[in-house]
Amino acid sequence: MRNIKLVLEYEGTRYHGWQRQRQKPTVQETLEDAVERITGERSVLYGASRTDAGVHARGQAANFHTGSALSPEVIGRALNAVLPRDIAVLTTEEMPEDFNARFSAKSKQYVYVIRNHSVRSAMDKAFHWHFRWSLDLERMRNAAGHLVGRHDFRSFCAAGSHSKDFVREVTALELVGDGAYITVQVEGNGFLYKMVRSMVGTLVEVGRGKIAASEVARILEAKERRLTGPTAPAAGLCLVSVRY
Amino acid sequence: MRNIKLVLEYEGTRYHGWQRQRQKPTVQETLEDAVERITGERSVLYGASRTDAGVHARGQAANFHTGSALSPEVIGRALNAVLPRDIAVLTTEEMPEDFNARFSAKSKQYVYVIRNHSVRSAMDKAFHWHFRWSLDLERMRNAAGHLVGRHDFRSFCAAGSHSKDFVREVTALELVGDGAYITVQVEGNGFLYKMVRSMVGTLVEVGRGKIAASEVARILEAKERRLTGPTAPAAGLCLVSVRY
Repeated sequence: MRNIKLVLEYEGTRYHGWQRQRQKPTVQETLEDAVERITGERSVLYGASRTDAGVHARGQAANFHTGSALSPEVIGRALNAVLPRDIAVLTTEEMPEDFNARFSAKSKQYVYVIRNHSVRSAMDKAFHWHFRWSLDLERMRNAAGHLVGRHDFRSFCAAGSHSKDFVREVTALELVGDGAYITVQVEGNGFLYKMVRSMVGTLVEVGRGKIAASEVARILEAKERRLTGPTAPAAGLCLVSVRY
Repeated sequence: MRNIKLVLEYEGTRYHGWQRQRQKPTVQETLEDAVERITGERSVLYGASRTDAGVHARGQAANFHTGSALSPEVIGRALNAVLPRDIAVLTTEEMPEDFNARFSAKSKQYVYVIRNHSVRSAMDKAFHWHFRWSLDLERMRNAAGHLVGRHDFRSFCAAGSHSKDFVREVTALELVGDGAYITVQVEGNGFLYKMVRSMVGTLVEVGRGKIAASEVARILEAKERRLTGPTAPAAGLCLVSVRY
């Protein structure tokens, strides 16, 4: 069996996330159907990140095993021909047998886009969170500093997680302001369920003055979900890349 | 009568351009209907740029005269409440009586986004031109240099124009490469019918090696439309701002 790695782009809007579910369209199932049409076999797609409903990807990684003799290039072109327009295969590559897109991943990069303006945008509604009230970027940056590093992120893990180990390392967390938009760039070795959106929701509470920047260190230590800000909406989040 | 200036954002995808037409939805008419709902009067909207079908705007300017006593702020909020989601009023301002969004404009800035990658994108399809074959950015920059300045741009004016004077000044024309994307940034005191898209189409012919960069100077001098490259698709074009 050959092991094929895919790097994928998708708009998550009309999918119920990555992971296969009964009777709901998911990115994983859509890809598995496409692979079956190309290779004639049913393969399981292993995704690096199980992105939630409405979350996008510019560089999701996935792999599958196949007996097909088609070259990776031909598989990529054929998949792009049969996939719906909101999923694209950017690159394909043959990998060693033990490569697993999820468990071999060293780090993941996400961006979260906030439109911080009193007026809604006419565009990109599926790709940002529109937050109307003024946000203080410097306060948000101070708060973000407390989240960088190796911590128990239980406070930032949403209910419904199956995780037992809540320790993760956030290696970078930067906020970039550009006109009406604030982009939160996050990198880490792994993320708990809705962790990025919980961090963004909390940073927004800091930015609007509801939580002090220094309070974020205490929220982290408390390991209690109810202290964090609300989970930011899915639309603003995009998985940018996965490093191996 | 008061003179109200609007700065507008819109996604042009489902409109037949800015300018009112019989039995086809346009941005101008949609705004005129919205103004009538707010003020109770039918006003003509004067737009700085008559953007074509499918062309977007992040900073179109327009003005209208009204006898309404509503403040500009209230007019802006009310318009955003009744406009469809793909049109938004960013700012409103009361102007002197003789201000006209079209004739008072000093310069306009456009961006054109090219996706230059062998694989289609899963996103932003309404906002870029997907060009699969490799483009040489340095050659395109050399060609762009010939277009900057005050010239007779007849060669870059599409059929159907009512212009009699073809002299325009392009004050800046920059090409920025960022991963799979090339963004063409253009500023000028005015543009002929489909002139930006003709310039982009010609630069792409240079980038793929079909036209020499130096040839662009001769195309300009020839004042003949048939020498330029094809008009680039509308989706990639966006009016960024209008200066007064």
